[in-house]
Parts: sequence; structure tokens; C-alpha cells
Amino acid sequence: MVSKTFQEIQIGDFAESSKTVSESDIYLYAGITGDFNPAHVNETYAKGTRFQTRIAHGMLMAGFVSGLLGTELPGAGSIYLGQEVKFLAPVHIGDTITARVEVVELIDGKRVKLRTSCTNQFGVMVLDGAALVMPPKQA
Amino acid sequence: MVSKTFQEIQIGDFAESSKTVSESDIYLYAGITGDFNPAHVNETYAKGTRFQTRIAHGMLMAGFVSGLLGTELPGAGSIYLGQEVKFLAPVHIGDTITARVEVVELIDGKRVKLRTSCTNQFGVMVLDGAALVMPPKQA
Amino acid sequence: MVSKTFQEIQIGDFAESSKTVSESDIYLYAGITGDFNPAHVNETYAKGTRFQTRIAHGMLMAGFVSGLLGTELPGAGSIYLGQEVKFLAPVHIGDTITARVEVVELIDGKRVKLRTSCTNQFGVMVLDGAALVMPPKQA
Amino acid sequence: MVSKTFQEIQIGDFAESSKTVSESDIYLYAGITGDFNPAHVNETYAKGTRFQTRIAHGMLMAGFVSGLLGTELPGAGSIYLGQEVKFLAPVHIGDTITARVEVVELIDGKRVKLRTSCTNQFGVMVLDGAALVMPPKQA
Repeated sequence: MVSKTFQEIQIGDFAESSKTVSESDIYLYAGITGDFNPAHVNETYAKGTRFQTRIAHGMLMAGFVSGLLGTELPGAGSIYLGQEVKFLAPVHIGDTITARVEVVELIDGKRVKLRTSCTNQFGVMVLDGAALVMPPKQA
Repeated sequence: MVSKTFQEIQIGDFAESSKTVSESDIYLYAGITGDFNPAHVNETYAKGTRFQTRIAHGMLMAGFVSGLLGTELPGAGSIYLGQEVKFLAPVHIGDTITARVEVVELIDGKRVKLRTSCTNQFGVMVLDGAALVMPPKQA
Repeated sequence: MVSKTFQEIQIGDFAESSKTVSESDIYLYAGITGDFNPAHVNETYAKGTRFQTRIAHGMLMAGFVSGLLGTELPGAGSIYLGQEVKFLAPVHIGDTITARVEVVELIDGKRVKLRTSCTNQFGVMVLDGAALVMPPKQA
Repeated sequence: MVSKTFQEIQIGDFAESSKTVSESDIYLYAGITGDFNPAHVNETYAKGTRFQTRIAHGMLMAGFVSGLLGTELPGAGSIYLGQEVKFLAPVHIGDTITARVEVVELIDGKRVKLRTSCTNQFGVMVLDGAALVMPPKQA
């Protein structure tokens, strides 16, 4: 179990994780959240949209970011205070998404701001934003 | 399938949905996102935290908000541009969460800003924030 | 519900079951176990491996074997004492796996040893091993 | 993404992970593997067994072990050659299981034997065994 205290964190520290987004990820996410937006679960409808096929829920990608914050940087014991995200491009079934969190600011000796992003297999950033986290007092 | 165009939306319009958060919601969410932060999936660890038991992933609540935006207000066909959230209080297994989205600003004749919040069964707001959405051109 | 007592079991008795391994099987398995090895959930990474695409978790196949032992031979009421497995070949998304358990030894009037194997749709054995089981006292 | 080559591994190296086993873990595992042994999914039946309540599939615990091997020690890029397990005690819904893998033997300059075990929140070992793994050539 990885985790870092405020004192152990430096600007520029980062963590990444990657996953190929499957249809089952999207369907389970829809099932948990109740987000049955047809853009996510109705291929017939989705063919008529500008994306031409079903796309993943943008917030699923935010979940990848959240996972990195809570398990790698700062890691277990962190208090997740807030998150801003912009959804920049659609994610399709089969896209491989790399989530990245990188420390950009140390605040008041106890909070950390991280730039948070998700990029697909073509290098296109699909999500960009920032997280505010309070690292654990003890690692 | 409900959806509203920009012209049909007024400040003050709102939508709500409620769900009791189950252990299986949290475990499936962990399984999809890879967020195995022990605060979510390790009861022995969680007993030693200030929350004293496992808590839900905050981003799961953001998924409830996202679901309302994409299925009710503005609904199907919306483009989700961005989201800000603050996590205000923990959500436990068995808590019943009401997500709410309410139109607070109409921008440039095409984008809508909504206040987004989640409140538990005791009336405690657990998540607060704002979403920026482009409603569908045709409902 | 099928089950056999020690007295009803003979060397050579066998049971089989088959399933096409889906992407969702692999993703759910990853989600339950936390096994996000990129060979299983990252297609971009997997393309660079000797298998050239994502493969199933080998232990998922052991689950098929375990299912046969617990539901068919000896069946419900069995105590599963131990298992040895060798992973012989990769299993890809879409492969149809036939699990087989066959009684090879009767021990001390109460335990049964079974050869356990999994074979793909081309007849290639992907898993081989042996299980030690105590059948139910009453069927 | 963590991984170690044969040269980087020493006897005594170990990795651990913990998870509270939920009802949903057991039900999803049953759904994937088809192992609907009533001891796992039928509480009425299970009340009449010596365990008096539903228990987890033993092979689910083997999945935790497999996850450690494939993501931490040796980690991504490993080839999983084989596994032996003994099931020593039942795992109940709500038990918190700590899986552990520890290097016990270095073989022929390319394979590694690890002792693999799972222990519950009371310190009772529920699974014991050994894995044979070929670490990645490059970390």
C-alpha cells in the first residue's frame, strides 16, 4: 500500500495507470450510477449522434483519476477535497486510457493540488483538470 | 427519453434522483476504476480511520450527478463540458443519496451551468459543485 | 443439485463444462480480485507482449474447474482440500474453454483425487492439474 | 506499474494486499465461473452445513494471490507457470483477507518459487501454497 505525507511530496511528482475501456466497464458503470444516457448504452441511437457509436461516460475517466489519487499519489489515507474536470474528447469502447496525476502546487503545509488528465492511445487528451487533496499525516 | 434544448431551459429548472448506496455499488465501482483504496474495500483498515468503517468513492456520487445531466436535465443529446465538485462529507454503505442538478446560468445562447449536489438521508450535503453542459439542438 | 458420496464415486468418473471466455468475464474477474495486470486489461500494452493481445487470467480457468467440483463431481457438500495447476497456454477473449475433472484416485475411504484440465476450442490444453476433494457424506 | 526481473529478486522479498470479501464479490465470482455451489449462493442451504452460513469460493482467494504475482511481485510481464494451494479454513462474507506472496527459491536463473498464503482478520491462515513464476526479462 503506497502513500506519501505532505512532507514527502514534491512538485512534479506523478503517477500513471492505464486501462483499455471495455463495453462491460461502460455497462457496469451505467448500472451503478443509473446513467442510461443512450449515448452510452444504445448503439442504434448512438449511430445517429456525431460520435457515430457508443461512448464511455466521461465521469468513468474521472474515476481512474480518483483511483490514482487514493492508491498511489498521495495514496491511502488521503482526503479527497475536490476535483475540476473538462471533458475534451469522447472515449470509445476499446480505447486505452492513461490517467495521470501530477503535483503542481503545495498549499499551506497540508494540501496538494495535482493536475489530472486522461489521454487515449493516440495521445489525445480526453480529460483535463485538477484535484485538491489532503495527504495522510502518516504514510 | 427526456431532453430539453437550450430554448426550453429556464433558470431554476431542476431534476433529482435518489439511490441507496450498496456495498456492491462500491465494490463494482472499485472493480471498474481500479480504485482499491483500502478506505473503500478493507473494513479492518477502515476501522482505524476517522470514518471508522468503509466509505463510498466520492466520484461515485459525481456519477449520480452525471446521470441526471445525461438522462433528465438537459437529457439525452447533451454534451458534458465540465464539472467541479467538492467532497464535503463521507458516504457510508446504506446511505440514501439524493443527487440534484439545478440550472443557475444560461450562457451565450448555447451552454447551461447547473449547480450539482448530493445530499444524504439526514439532509447533509456530501457533494457540492457545478456542471457546464451544452443541451441538445433538438429534443 | 447433483452430488455423489465417496461410495458412489469410481475411478474414471468425469464431468465437463464449457464456456466462451468474454471480455466482460476478464474485466469482472480483474475487478473482483484487483488483478489489473496490463496483460489482462491494457490492449496497447498487450500488443507488445508475446501474446499480442489481452489474455485471460489463468486463475479464471481454475475457477471453472472449481465450479465443476462443487456442483457436479463430487458436487454440493464437497470439501475442497487443495488444487495444483500448471498454466500451459494463454486463453484469449472469445476462446471457448472446456473444463474437465476426472477421478483418478480414491484415498483412505474418504478423499478423491481428480485430474483437472481446461482445453480450448482447438483442442489445446491450457491448464492441467489435480484436485483433492472430500465428497459429501450424504448426497 | 511495478515489476522485477529475476536479477532484481531476492529470497525473502514479499508483497501483500488486503480486501474485505463482500457478498457481491462472491456473487460475481459465481456468475463468471458458473460455480453456483449452494455453499456459496444459497443461505438456506448453507445454514444446514457445518459452516452455518455462505462461504466464499476458495479459488477467489487464489485470485488475490494471482493478482499480487501479476501486479507487484514479480509484477507485469511475469509468466505464471503454476500454483499449488491448500484450502485450510472457510472465508465468510465480511472477512478481511490479506494475501501474501514471498520469494522462497530462485531456480535455474529464470524461475522463482513463492510461498503464497491468505490470512483472515483473526490471523487464521485460510489458504497456503506455492507459485512458480518466470519474471519478466525487462522490468
